[in-house]
Amino acid sequence: MNEYEIIEKFFKRQTPDAVGVILGIGDDAAIVRVPADRELVLAIDTLVAGVHFPRETAPEDIGWKALAVNLGDLAAMGAEPHWVTLSLSLPEADEDWLSRFAQGFFQLAGRYGLALIGGDLCRGPLAVTVQAHGLVPAGQAITRAGARPGDRIYVSGTLGDAGYSLTEAGCHGPYRRYFRGRLDRPEPRLKLGQALRGIATSAIDISDGLAGDLAHILNASHVGAELDATRLPLSRELQMATEYEEGRRLALTAGDDYELCFTAAPASDAAIEQLAAENRVRLTVVGTIQSGSGLKCLEISRDEQYTGYRHF
Amino acid sequence: MNEYEIIEKFFKRQTPDAVGVILGIGDDAAIVRVPADRELVLAIDTLVAGVHFPRETAPEDIGWKALAVNLGDLAAMGAEPHWVTLSLSLPEADEDWLSRFAQGFFQLAGRYGLALIGGDLCRGPLAVTVQAHGLVPAGQAITRAGARPGDRIYVSGTLGDAGYSLTEAGCHGPYRRYFRGRLDRPEPRLKLGQALRGIATSAIDISDGLAGDLAHILNASHVGAELDATRLPLSRELQMATEYEEGRRLALTAGDDYELCFTAAPASDAAIEQLAAENRVRLTVVGTIQSGSGLKCLEISRDEQYTGYRHF
Repeated sequence: MNEYEIIEKFFKRQTPDAVGVILGIGDDAAIVRVPADRELVLAIDTLVAGVHFPRETAPEDIGWKALAVNLGDLAAMGAEPHWVTLSLSLPEADEDWLSRFAQGFFQLAGRYGLALIGGDLCRGPLAVTVQAHGLVPAGQAITRAGARPGDRIYVSGTLGDAGYSLTEAGCHGPYRRYFRGRLDRPEPRLKLGQALRGIATSAIDISDGLAGDLAHILNASHVGAELDATRLPLSRELQMATEYEEGRRLALTAGDDYELCFTAAPASDAAIEQLAAENRVRLTVVGTIQSGSGLKCLEISRDEQYTGYRHF
Repeated sequence: MNEYEIIEKFFKRQTPDAVGVILGIGDDAAIVRVPADRELVLAIDTLVAGVHFPRETAPEDIGWKALAVNLGDLAAMGAEPHWVTLSLSLPEADEDWLSRFAQGFFQLAGRYGLALIGGDLCRGPLAVTVQAHGLVPAGQAITRAGARPGDRIYVSGTLGDAGYSLTEAGCHGPYRRYFRGRLDRPEPRLKLGQALRGIATSAIDISDGLAGDLAHILNASHVGAELDATRLPLSRELQMATEYEEGRRLALTAGDDYELCFTAAPASDAAIEQLAAENRVRLTVVGTIQSGSGLKCLEISRDEQYTGYRHF
């Protein structure tokens, strides 16, 4: 199969519920229409084999994850996703691999009515770049820059599972399938992010570890924070699989969970309790925004540096 | 340097003349505003080292070309470029390389007042993905689908130089710098593309070779074409460096020139002559759209298959 046949067979799909698509796959560029009362929100991310996912990752999971990590970014902005572009670099045109990759990709895309509107396919080392495009009511996007002293710091779901799946014990223990599922199939918190518009003062998705990602909020908002590591939400599985200290450390520093970290004023307590119930998502207060700068962490040795994952 | 320092130092630039940027580099996603009377035009492309450019290509040229190939796609749609995202995968954080890459990238971006609004930087095999975002007056984009029997087929500039630079003779001959410049520094035909709105019935940028790219127009428009290879525009340098037949063959099948191929009705002859003069670009009629399907090529053996570059 040449690349045109591959695109036709695996990637050109009807998406009848997609909105605003004027021209999709098959021309020099795609064309979409953005409503006048909306702003366009864009996030791009590349996943490289052996860097962002283990080389033996199932193609379905690579397809899912490449899309999920970008949807996580839109979730953190409070945006509603609509359109996706995909650039795929592949060592060879393996039909089975392509079919399975597309299955995982469209499984997640279909859940949110997303249209794949364009892309690029070439020969090269295995790497997947996705750009997700969403809409947000004008002026209502949640950024990293609005946290204020006194705000509570929340995280959604539980932390540390994805990171634990990459450890020796996590690969081989009794819950290895659960942990690996958290690594391979992150669930973007889109509904939560949208519900947080007007409530959260800042938000970020946790891709590189809570400590590192929260630091981005602190820098952008020109504030500091105190985290209480004893309050970090751990899954039952991670609590059973790890010693207390190791679990906390993973929850604080391991990435790939794609949960949301956000801040909100205490006056929003009731609203947040309600939206947690409505969206059936666990939301946990893990600390407080303070004036000043830097991240203080209770209950874990202060000598350690809690930076997130860094490529360089 | 870690990735945040790299982004801050090399990629976060003020672009005072950029329009519609609400949030640029430094958050989970970028935000832009699209005017109500415009449609958004998107093109994404990945360049992989050793596939899309020779491994020894100068970093400045990689930066330029990664942007240029996407701007070529917007040119073919008649769009005006505004915003760019960049995903860069690098084996190591080499400051000199990064500085030179950014120099080439922003040299071209600056020429059109483009803002780099977001991106991604990771460790991996050298590959560059750019997505270009442009605007077009609603309903006025030029697609591949409007060519009609009787339309003239035009190409801009000259063809075959970039392809020749990759041949043994092209690497070592007297004009090797000229040819290599055509490969490394394609000039996106943005002004021409915009001027062709309302005149061209279809357009495509020539990335994979005229024969292959024209075939995309024919397929999308459900028409055929007759090309006269004797009329293919060759640079003076290519005419001097090659035998007659070889030059024609390169002009017909070699990619990477990023000139425009477009179609227009004979009634547009005067308008096209005028815009060629205004934009100081050579426009050559190389054939005619016909009813039916397929590409007939006069003056070159009919036994050969003229497909463009294919990855698989």
